Amino acid sequence: MTKVAAGITTSLDGYVTGPGDGPGRGLGEGGERLHWWVFGGPWTYEDGARGQATGVDKAYLEEAEARFGAVVAGRTTYDVTGAWGGRNPFGVPMFVVTHRLEDAPAPDSGFRFAAWVGEAVAAAREAAGGRDVSVMGGPEVIRQALAAGLVDELTVTIAPLVLGGGKRLFDGFDQTVVLQHAGLRQSPFTTHLTYRVQSASKEAP
Amino acid sequence: MTKVAAGITTSLDGYVTGPGDGPGRGLGEGGERLHWWVFGGPWTYEDGARGQATGVDKAYLEEAEARFGAVVAGRTTYDVTGAWGGRNPFGVPMFVVTHRLEDAPAPDSGFRFAAWVGEAVAAAREAAGGRDVSVMGGPEVIRQALAAGLVDELTVTIAPLVLGGGKRLFDGFDQTVVLQHAGLRQSPFTTHLTYRVQSASKEAP
Repeated sequence: MTKVAAGITTSLDGYVTGPGDGPGRGLGEGGERLHWWVFGGPWTYEDGARGQATGVDKAYLEEAEARFGAVVAGRTTYDVTGAWGGRNPFGVPMFVVTHRLEDAPAPDSGFRFAAWVGEAVAAAREAAGGRDVSVMGGPEVIRQALAAGLVDELTVTIAPLVLGGGKRLFDGFDQTVVLQHAGLRQSPFTTHLTYRVQSASKEAP
Repeated sequence: MTKVAAGITTSLDGYVTGPGDGPGRGLGEGGERLHWWVFGGPWTYEDGARGQATGVDKAYLEEAEARFGAVVAGRTTYDVTGAWGGRNPFGVPMFVVTHRLEDAPAPDSGFRFAAWVGEAVAAAREAAGGRDVSVMGGPEVIRQALAAGLVDELTVTIAPLVLGGGKRLFDGFDQTVVLQHAGLRQSPFTTHLTYRVQSASKEAP
């Protein structure tokens, strides 16, 4: 049965970007360190030299690639990456949650727009062909999916770093969600904490 | 050499209490679940029936007891617990950071007041007799100690729970702190993430 798995990288203080992120400014001040695990160590936007994930981080990425049959992303992520150059690089259909449906991507781009997260997840489930659905972020689409009770599994990948500013994964999220441990891995660069979502509601657990 | 280790329990969204915490209201709405690891499962303020920590949680507490020769706490923690009934229960000297020095505890209570976190940590180092110093929280005293560069090791014990409100460990903390992994343990009730503090500064890493 298809599961919906949300996953995102944060600092220990819960930020998915450093201070001053945005188009042309990447992950903000100091934010590259969040993703050292993806590139096997230090990297910058400037010099372009990036290594490969290794060890448990490599395994994590390879398992994700094998597991997911469709991806859901938010419009900000789509815009900040410049729509990954205009063509979906994931090898599976991607559904982008956006209010601005008018500037939809070309049908052969591999992207499709959806007006809200429920529509995107439903379309992704159908497109996934029995495989799982990844909700890759950004934070707003993950919060929306959690609040709507659409997430079966949540992975927060915590970099060993306090950023002291930026955008928080749980900014403005006021619901209680009870979780169960479902996986734990650590590399020198990060800790992957995976949880099953047991219940999400406005009520205290 | 004496190390200073800060440690505190949070939800996955970084709260050390649920919404509406305070004197007489304990850890706030749903906040008891943060400390299931301490009591080996569910507990409430009302019924008083509390179990014991088990497995890795028990080992964590026993190691802390063996390791620490002095404890630093904040005034809010001291007040919320009613000064632990008026007598220090930790078996080692405790230093309480407070602006209100006038209502100091009796000399034989096992508590001593200090006017700021630097004074408390210095006195605790001296009192620890070569053992380590625990900065047990609350969050404000941990933030102050981190900001002052006084913390060698930080443990965040993360309960499998999104609380959606309360007091955040890193509320208002605007510095960057680079960490290194120094320990990882998980029980059914929590994940203990321990870090060495590599650098703390206003500059991005």
